[in-house]
Amino acid sequence: MAQLRVHNLAVSLDGFATGEDRTFDAPFGHAQDRLMRWYFPTRTFMEMSGHMGEATGDGANGIDDVFAAQTRRGIGAEIMGRGKFGPQVGPWQDHSWQGWWGNEPPFHTPVVVLTHHERPDLVLGETTFLFRDLTPQAALALATDLAGGLDVRLGGGPTVVREFLAADLVDFLHIVVVPIVLGRGVRLWDGLEGLEERFDSETAVSPSGVAHYTLSRRTPVGELHGGPAPRT
Amino acid sequence: MAQLRVHNLAVSLDGFATGEDRTFDAPFGHAQDRLMRWYFPTRTFMEMSGHMGEATGDGANGIDDVFAAQTRRGIGAEIMGRGKFGPQVGPWQDHSWQGWWGNEPPFHTPVVVLTHHERPDLVLGETTFLFRDLTPQAALALATDLAGGLDVRLGGGPTVVREFLAADLVDFLHIVVVPIVLGRGVRLWDGLEGLEERFDSETAVSPSGVAHYTLSRRTPVGELHGGPAPRT
Repeated sequence: MAQLRVHNLAVSLDGFATGEDRTFDAPFGHAQDRLMRWYFPTRTFMEMSGHMGEATGDGANGIDDVFAAQTRRGIGAEIMGRGKFGPQVGPWQDHSWQGWWGNEPPFHTPVVVLTHHERPDLVLGETTFLFRDLTPQAALALATDLAGGLDVRLGGGPTVVREFLAADLVDFLHIVVVPIVLGRGVRLWDGLEGLEERFDSETAVSPSGVAHYTLSRRTPVGELHGGPAPRT
Repeated sequence: MAQLRVHNLAVSLDGFATGEDRTFDAPFGHAQDRLMRWYFPTRTFMEMSGHMGEATGDGANGIDDVFAAQTRRGIGAEIMGRGKFGPQVGPWQDHSWQGWWGNEPPFHTPVVVLTHHERPDLVLGETTFLFRDLTPQAALALATDLAGGLDVRLGGGPTVVREFLAADLVDFLHIVVVPIVLGRGVRLWDGLEGLEERFDSETAVSPSGVAHYTLSRRTPVGELHGGPAPRT
């Protein structure tokens, strides 16, 4: 069965997944790069962002990279919130602006961009952005269809992840707890009381100081043998 | 130098150190025992609570116990909020009620109970409770004096710990992140933005699923050689 997966979602000790005062030049707001410093040195990030071989080196192969690398494994489509495509809000003013991701975005798959303001599909390199006003369920159905049997990545931001978690659509969640106190921003966990009852969690610590949590959705007993629970 | 230390302070993934709806019978409110389940099986807890040798066994010696045991090391006094002594609020109605801790409380030292409603000192076994209306600085001065050269434990609750952290009085902080989402209660981290800049942190994971964080206050450069920084 294809899964819906979240990877590399970093939160502070106080549960903020992004900061306040986000702008075009500061996508994480006052958090700046502090939630993602564990990620930038990884070989996975270096490869995806085209930095291999520059002065930054070839990227680290350690524990952080082991987790980061999973984000590329067997993904056929991504779902993201509009804020991950660009900082604009409200009706699109300018279709010539093509997002933060450049001419060859690192997705290489169809990407469903959730927005109340649809616009024509945008093809950039191997990535096609589809701007759609859909419920989480409908977005997942579309992305699953586009993924052709592979998994779907739920790319964030935190508000979108929270909505999909609340709707119990997420099969796998990789959270990275960074030992900083952000104090303000967008909280990941609001409205998700008792989430742990639906997931099995495991934890690993990296020398970089972050803790990696994997949350895997528990299989309901009736589904253990390959089908839905019999109706009783 | 004597230190002010916090131990075994458990928080949920969303940063709550206790739940909502706390009562006499439910000191952690709707969180019930979920924040402390890692702690109860430890040898340290078994010894402190007098359960050794009962059906629960002798207690576990694993990673969780390694951390828990530190709470007893070299402590000469404790500071706690009134809520850790008992559930009452407002003026004391009944001095005959002597707290949740029984006739032989597990502290065995003077304990400064912070309250706006003072009452006579209370001696129970080897523990003396002093009920005082003090600022964090004055409470620390009193407890340091009572500790006779040993360290002072800051015993919680989270509101008290937050106040002492905001006043930069805490030297060591042991936090236990439990992989649950409480959703409501008392947040530990509010108002502490940027706390990590004052502490060096390390992390370890236990097979029980919790992550132990140690935060040690950084020594200002001028104090590295044994005295205050020279005035310039």
